Amino acid sequence: MSTKGKLVVGQSGGPTAVINQSLVGVIQEAMKHESVGGILGMVHGVEGLLKEQFVDMRGLNAKQLEAVAATPGAGLGSCRFKPKEEDCKNIFEVCRKHDIHYYFYIGGNDSALSAGIVNKIARAAGYELRVFHVPKTIDNDLLVTDHCPGYGSAAKYVAQCFMGNDADNRALPGIKIDIVMGRNAGWLTAAAALARVNPGDGPHAVFLPERGYTLKQFLETVDAAYQKHGRAVIAVSEGIADTDSNTFMESEKVRAELKEMGMDAILDAFEASGKVEDLSGGAKRDAFGHIQLSGSGALADFLASATKIYLYKKYQKKARVRADTLGYAQRSMAGVVSETDALEAREAGVAATRIAMLGDIDGSVCFRRLESNFDKYFCEPFRASLEDVSGVNFPAGMKQYRPLDDRFIGGNDVDVTPEFIDWVRPLIGDLPPKGVIELPRKD
Amino acid sequence: MSTKGKLVVGQSGGPTAVINQSLVGVIQEAMKHESVGGILGMVHGVEGLLKEQFVDMRGLNAKQLEAVAATPGAGLGSCRFKPKEEDCKNIFEVCRKHDIHYYFYIGGNDSALSAGIVNKIARAAGYELRVFHVPKTIDNDLLVTDHCPGYGSAAKYVAQCFMGNDADNRALPGIKIDIVMGRNAGWLTAAAALARVNPGDGPHAVFLPERGYTLKQFLETVDAAYQKHGRAVIAVSEGIADTDSNTFMESEKVRAELKEMGMDAILDAFEASGKVEDLSGGAKRDAFGHIQLSGSGALADFLASATKIYLYKKYQKKARVRADTLGYAQRSMAGVVSETDALEAREAGVAATRIAMLGDIDGSVCFRRLESNFDKYFCEPFRASLEDVSGVNFPAGMKQYRPLDDRFIGGNDVDVTPEFIDWVRPLIGDLPPKGVIELPRKD
Repeated sequence: MSTKGKLVVGQSGGPTAVINQSLVGVIQEAMKHESVGGILGMVHGVEGLLKEQFVDMRGLNAKQLEAVAATPGAGLGSCRFKPKEEDCKNIFEVCRKHDIHYYFYIGGNDSALSAGIVNKIARAAGYELRVFHVPKTIDNDLLVTDHCPGYGSAAKYVAQCFMGNDADNRALPGIKIDIVMGRNAGWLTAAAALARVNPGDGPHAVFLPERGYTLKQFLETVDAAYQKHGRAVIAVSEGIADTDSNTFMESEKVRAELKEMGMDAILDAFEASGKVEDLSGGAKRDAFGHIQLSGSGALADFLASATKIYLYKKYQKKARVRADTLGYAQRSMAGVVSETDALEAREAGVAATRIAMLGDIDGSVCFRRLESNFDKYFCEPFRASLEDVSGVNFPAGMKQYRPLDDRFIGGNDVDVTPEFIDWVRPLIGDLPPKGVIELPRKD
Repeated sequence: MSTKGKLVVGQSGGPTAVINQSLVGVIQEAMKHESVGGILGMVHGVEGLLKEQFVDMRGLNAKQLEAVAATPGAGLGSCRFKPKEEDCKNIFEVCRKHDIHYYFYIGGNDSALSAGIVNKIARAAGYELRVFHVPKTIDNDLLVTDHCPGYGSAAKYVAQCFMGNDADNRALPGIKIDIVMGRNAGWLTAAAALARVNPGDGPHAVFLPERGYTLKQFLETVDAAYQKHGRAVIAVSEGIADTDSNTFMESEKVRAELKEMGMDAILDAFEASGKVEDLSGGAKRDAFGHIQLSGSGALADFLASATKIYLYKKYQKKARVRADTLGYAQRSMAGVVSETDALEAREAGVAATRIAMLGDIDGSVCFRRLESNFDKYFCEPFRASLEDVSGVNFPAGMKQYRPLDDRFIGGNDVDVTPEFIDWVRPLIGDLPPKGVIELPRKD
């Protein structure tokens, strides 16, 4: 029934804790179909494909495949390459040369976009290439689907991290700021709220990239939480932005606020750090041509410094302020995996392959939630078009990704709603216990 | 047999994932002894005791106690207070006033030291106060004992984090530098080596505070690993120091090297950051009066910048260098706990209490390793004197903490020995699987 031909599968973008589950899902399902003449893995995504670098996936036995599936990171190697139209033509030519008729690309929205272009080129050439995008992202910012494989495990990491940070902050009270990944989508930052178990638990404020803030609003919110609880745990998206949607690190408004508040020294530190970057091939400049403060801990250190200065000026007392940038562990911590996420990631790979075997069809695998409460949760995979998932046909100005839903943002825009907790909880599974001894406030 | 009187228990210093196990161990054992007239918890350690702030621990039922035991952070609250002789007198007076005859302090070496002083004062006053130190530290730097409760869970976190970071780095090759806690002891940084499962796995170099390095040696080591593997994962202790034992961030030698290598811009960035700190009550100065680069990500960003500049100058090509400071999750991540560590932390609390009930005796609980291999491991608790554990009677110049053993340092001082892996493995327990697909090198 199906076309006899080879299958190729690749991985792209930032890895997740379960992206290899999807890879193994594709391979295991593909092995069941006689029409699949060979199973090739792209080495480092389309970058490897363009160089005709492949791994024969039939060379791995079931035990090896299961070990790979349980390992974070992209087992086939990943890439940050965003192919242009010309590259997509070359991708197609490599497929034709190697008699590849099934093409699976596990990645985020950029991957859906390029898969769509390759697909169009193949169609125009009258070559049957069944192109499937298999979604993965810890940012959870893909269109159409209820949620993305990779998100649940990252959200679990963030939740456990905040549970621990909150317990730590109770023990040694002060202000703790944690920067969470997610670019311009707040899904992962929002998951910090899962850390709340007992009354007074942090995070005491959640700053999401979907809302615009002034620096003053940030500082006042932190201060208010600190005054209220005698301590404060604050979740901040790495994409925190001003009221014009410019991120804090490239905001002219935040610069103006720093000057107004007598914190020019922070701007000087930005400039000095930028000059360091220049020595290694050029510093990043923001939209206004200013040097951006770079480095992994930059936003965390900036917010911690501004908070310390603000509180010292206001109360003439040094405050204990600490900040962590949660780092790569969010997307690749070994051993912290949501079971539901792992199962769904596997299912996404299996479903894409099954659908591709049905006929000359292309698409992306999405999830539809049929039932959802803590005891009973069920999602089914379904096929969506590559165009819909990549948002390629959206009118100009419309977002080609999915921000955190409005209904999930509450608490004067610095918190999530109970509805969000109900939505996210089944994706995470069980969290560790959190027992608290009620203590008098320490001031 | 025992003196009738109240028991007080407190927690001090940086929390760990299992410090509450020790707390619950003390309480559960104390409840079995009729001679214990009451069980008081110090609120935020001796700071609370001095203010006579106590929690009645009998108010918590078994279920609540178990929930607290399983929670990271110090449930009673902690403090960073290092009591002076005068404070210790006051601590004793509060004990006498409240009819406290059993005194348990869960903490690091400072806690052993202050417990010893309180003990002496009580003896001089002819008041029977049985003083026990219960060890906890993720740094594992206590004297006498084989290892400390708290270390195993932190080491497990570090190992899993490096497993994931290594998988991530395989997927997107570049240089990844991770800064690990441990102050001037390298035990926790050394645990990163547990992440190696398959050939070529990182970390590819481990920089320990027990050895002195030049900045040039650091950069050359990173470069060599990068050239050899086409990628590099580097573990660096937060206490990385020069050949005079001054940490990199306060080293005159490193400053001189930066100038020599044309990286003065990094020194300027130090100065600019220091001026930011001045606005919040004063910047930290190093031993030479220079402003120290502060902030959570400072060392990571500094090493990443120096590496980028070094490689750009050498190869005229921008390198992908990322750095994470592993952060507070190392000591307080919820859900990442070594079972062995949790059991031993409980046992330490139980053992201290049991021994204290035997007679008028004081001390600290240590562990002696009787058997150790992967299948069979057994440690027994024993009593050591407060003086021996705190190192208070050591001759001047001798270290009052335990650095990583020489026999555990190898690989030209930038790695651990196989002997270390054998030593540490039973403390961690099982690690998640790590499956790898062999890929051609990406350059």
